[in-house]
Amino acid sequence: MPTVREATFELFRAHGMTTIFGNPGSTELPMLAEFPDDFTYVLGLQELAVVGMADGFAQATGRPTHVNLHTAPGVGNAVGGIFNAHANKSPLVITAGQQVRPQIMIEANLTNRDPTVGPQPHVKWAHEPARAQDVPGALARAIMHATLPPRGPAFVSIPMDDWGADADADRAVNATRRVVSGRAAPDPAALARLAAAVEAAGNPVLVAGPDIDASGGWNAAIALAEKQRLPVWASPATGGNRLGFPESHPQFLGILPPAIGPISETLKGHDLVLVVGSSVFPYYPYIPGPLLPEGATLTVITSDPAEAARAPMGDAILGDVGLALQQLVELVGESDRSAPDPRPAPGDPPEADPMSGSQAMAALADVWPEDGIAVLEAPSSTMAMRNRLRLSRPGSYYFGASGGLGFGISAAVGVQLAQPSRPVVCVLGEGSAQYGITALWTAVAYKLPVTFLVLRNSEYMILKAFAALEQVEGAPGLDLPALDTAAVARGYGVQSTDVADRGQLTEALRDAIAAEDGPRLVQVPVASGMWME
Amino acid sequence: MPTVREATFELFRAHGMTTIFGNPGSTELPMLAEFPDDFTYVLGLQELAVVGMADGFAQATGRPTHVNLHTAPGVGNAVGGIFNAHANKSPLVITAGQQVRPQIMIEANLTNRDPTVGPQPHVKWAHEPARAQDVPGALARAIMHATLPPRGPAFVSIPMDDWGADADADRAVNATRRVVSGRAAPDPAALARLAAAVEAAGNPVLVAGPDIDASGGWNAAIALAEKQRLPVWASPATGGNRLGFPESHPQFLGILPPAIGPISETLKGHDLVLVVGSSVFPYYPYIPGPLLPEGATLTVITSDPAEAARAPMGDAILGDVGLALQQLVELVGESDRSAPDPRPAPGDPPEADPMSGSQAMAALADVWPEDGIAVLEAPSSTMAMRNRLRLSRPGSYYFGASGGLGFGISAAVGVQLAQPSRPVVCVLGEGSAQYGITALWTAVAYKLPVTFLVLRNSEYMILKAFAALEQVEGAPGLDLPALDTAAVARGYGVQSTDVADRGQLTEALRDAIAAEDGPRLVQVPVASGMWME
Repeated sequence: MPTVREATFELFRAHGMTTIFGNPGSTELPMLAEFPDDFTYVLGLQELAVVGMADGFAQATGRPTHVNLHTAPGVGNAVGGIFNAHANKSPLVITAGQQVRPQIMIEANLTNRDPTVGPQPHVKWAHEPARAQDVPGALARAIMHATLPPRGPAFVSIPMDDWGADADADRAVNATRRVVSGRAAPDPAALARLAAAVEAAGNPVLVAGPDIDASGGWNAAIALAEKQRLPVWASPATGGNRLGFPESHPQFLGILPPAIGPISETLKGHDLVLVVGSSVFPYYPYIPGPLLPEGATLTVITSDPAEAARAPMGDAILGDVGLALQQLVELVGESDRSAPDPRPAPGDPPEADPMSGSQAMAALADVWPEDGIAVLEAPSSTMAMRNRLRLSRPGSYYFGASGGLGFGISAAVGVQLAQPSRPVVCVLGEGSAQYGITALWTAVAYKLPVTFLVLRNSEYMILKAFAALEQVEGAPGLDLPALDTAAVARGYGVQSTDVADRGQLTEALRDAIAAEDGPRLVQVPVASGMWME
Repeated sequence: MPTVREATFELFRAHGMTTIFGNPGSTELPMLAEFPDDFTYVLGLQELAVVGMADGFAQATGRPTHVNLHTAPGVGNAVGGIFNAHANKSPLVITAGQQVRPQIMIEANLTNRDPTVGPQPHVKWAHEPARAQDVPGALARAIMHATLPPRGPAFVSIPMDDWGADADADRAVNATRRVVSGRAAPDPAALARLAAAVEAAGNPVLVAGPDIDASGGWNAAIALAEKQRLPVWASPATGGNRLGFPESHPQFLGILPPAIGPISETLKGHDLVLVVGSSVFPYYPYIPGPLLPEGATLTVITSDPAEAARAPMGDAILGDVGLALQQLVELVGESDRSAPDPRPAPGDPPEADPMSGSQAMAALADVWPEDGIAVLEAPSSTMAMRNRLRLSRPGSYYFGASGGLGFGISAAVGVQLAQPSRPVVCVLGEGSAQYGITALWTAVAYKLPVTFLVLRNSEYMILKAFAALEQVEGAPGLDLPALDTAAVARGYGVQSTDVADRGQLTEALRDAIAAEDGPRLVQVPVASGMWME
């Protein structure tokens, strides 16, 4: 008769979940006892970082990923990361230890009171098994919830005295061997109508969202755009945890702005807006205007019923984004429309001292490795980075779609673990870097060759930009004097370099990206400003 | 007609809430606009640290304290801290920004979806006003919830477009001028019965809990113990966010262990156990046994109905702990019992290299300033610190009663802000220090003369101790190689000293405590082990 622990590790093996991200506490020890040799435990020093690592790993492997947290406070410290993972549609299976069953009702210290409430509203499912024997089955169910569309985090609270109990072998075996196919193609009739509408449209446009990459629809999106000569915009950067389209493609026009008025202004003249794999839309600042330009209709293809429901305009077709794109490519003919004019290559940005974010991104572009992966958490330079790197391979860009900070460093750690042969570069603002700063220790401890680039402007620039937009003056807390992230990183054992000019930056980045024995950090002062190009 | 913002700041002024702890985001900017000169904004770089600072400040001032967070992700990062504040009964008024009202239903980016759910189950009340005009009233209500017994965090989500709206002047003025007296004395008949039972008991014992200090009952507890010659135990350290009794008092016997069997073993021979201002009990490890020793009855005085309800044994009397103690002192006569034998002074601990936690605490005791305040987050040295410092003034000890980490550094910052004339010493393990590490930057930025003492054992010792107790072997993630907190602290600008022996430690601590121009950190390697004495 296997124990609950043995049955659970068999379940994890069956799903390829042999890398566990965690920060252990006493309530997790019975799970971790006699930790099997074929599993890897990745230790983080704070739970926001732990979840961020798992989020990056899950996205970059496409597999459900196990995060183990410490009862109520561990879950509590992680909630911001769970919010991010929900927005990123990251298939996390989150477990937390719980007091022993005999001490839950009396709320002994570290009891996870109302354990299914703590991670809400950011998980797809939350459960605490009523009996020890139900733990493997509950985890199997959590894996299903996490991986069925839309992907996202699921949560199971596990009393610490459950792990040594006898499993129900029949239930555990059946739970372990279940295979659920969640990839469903949209209604063929709806797709056929959409294909006909695209063909018939006078001036259709494709808006490419993050789920194109996540669903494996990258090549089909290119084929559809080329066959129909569609101009392509990226969905707003705010909600784009991945890219939906190669950004150096001649039909790619840029990134939609993240507000109502500017989006309809940008799309003016189009009669059909086809949005694929994005919410409609991840608006952020409130800039009123018409939802769509005069004369336009909109259809979104999404695998997320909530995205379909909450869109304020347009039609929606539910189904797997990759399958939908493949079928659309078959359904449409070659168009004789003329393709849009390609946008110009980014020019060399003007010199300045300290350099602009654009110059820093130009330096990064100069040394960018063909198979590089960018993890981005530098709000004031997001647009400049996208414009200058013009990343054009799938799985090459990760960003926190929620808008929550603390994703960057930790996600880069997880992505590097998932993609050990590709160079990972994490671009950070020094303000953003602080939320999950301890993930630097993990990068050192596990010798992960991530390159961290810290843009130091000594302020929360994005907030100053929003303050100007909102006509706010005299707000405190927007400056970050004497915050030296390179010095902190050295404290965590990261080899860190401070550079001042573009030549030094280029060299330092080249060296950092080439290093293979552990993380490197390069810090450069940048001027105050929002860097759009 | 005042705006909602103006009316709100008037409300805060009326309650003395002119220090705001925050980490701002775009959704908070309209609140912070034209920030009034008579308010202080204390910036933290991550929300767990922000809440910890406010928690320390609220406890050390006794006043409701405002924490301002950034919509869903800011609240998410803070949940662990809110869990701590709930256990610490800290009267926090937590606000978070929210998307503009026109973009909430469509879930624009950074919408706080189900905003009242996010901080649950750790807040006493959570609300999002239905109209802008209700914001000042909702905040007034939150202040009441936070400060009425049991104190604890309350939460209000505020759409960012509400701040500039016209307030309802009549409602705002009435909300602002309300005074609610929440300090209620227990039923006189119940207290009289209890007084008679204490007098009649053959061998009564007092268990002193954290709410004695929080309620101002310190002197009354001493008077009661002395009048009735009661031996006094501290409630288990696990749930003790404050002290309940002077630990150098000749009738003070020590700290109860945090488990069922050992507690009843420790209290054996007593026929009446009087618990004041604690839950019954903050058990942590599950060590079964009788709940009470043979022949004993138990009564707890608490202002927390939930504590009264969930205790697994004994009677309870609801009411303010300080008032109850004052009245009990009046009700009982002088006993002619003999007082217990005083416990011996702590001896000099044996020398070792690296030193033991006991030696480190002995060094701290050697230089301890009379009016010093200890903030503690060093699980393996908690008992040694309590035993060696034997703190005996009210308001001199703060600890995270929840068991959640990330409290120490940030709470020390808040306590120092609240008590600028008293030396604050924060004792940390290097593992514990990481959860809220960025609070070091705030200590530097605000020139707070906190002394941080980091005990470096390169492991999660408390987990190894629990693993031994739980008979767990082979668990990963319990070692912390190459984690140099002093180096990280230097990165944040903290003057930090590494010492190796007790003489150096004593000198470094003396210098650090004397320094008045900003924080100092002293790091010392300690041997592996749990330091109980």
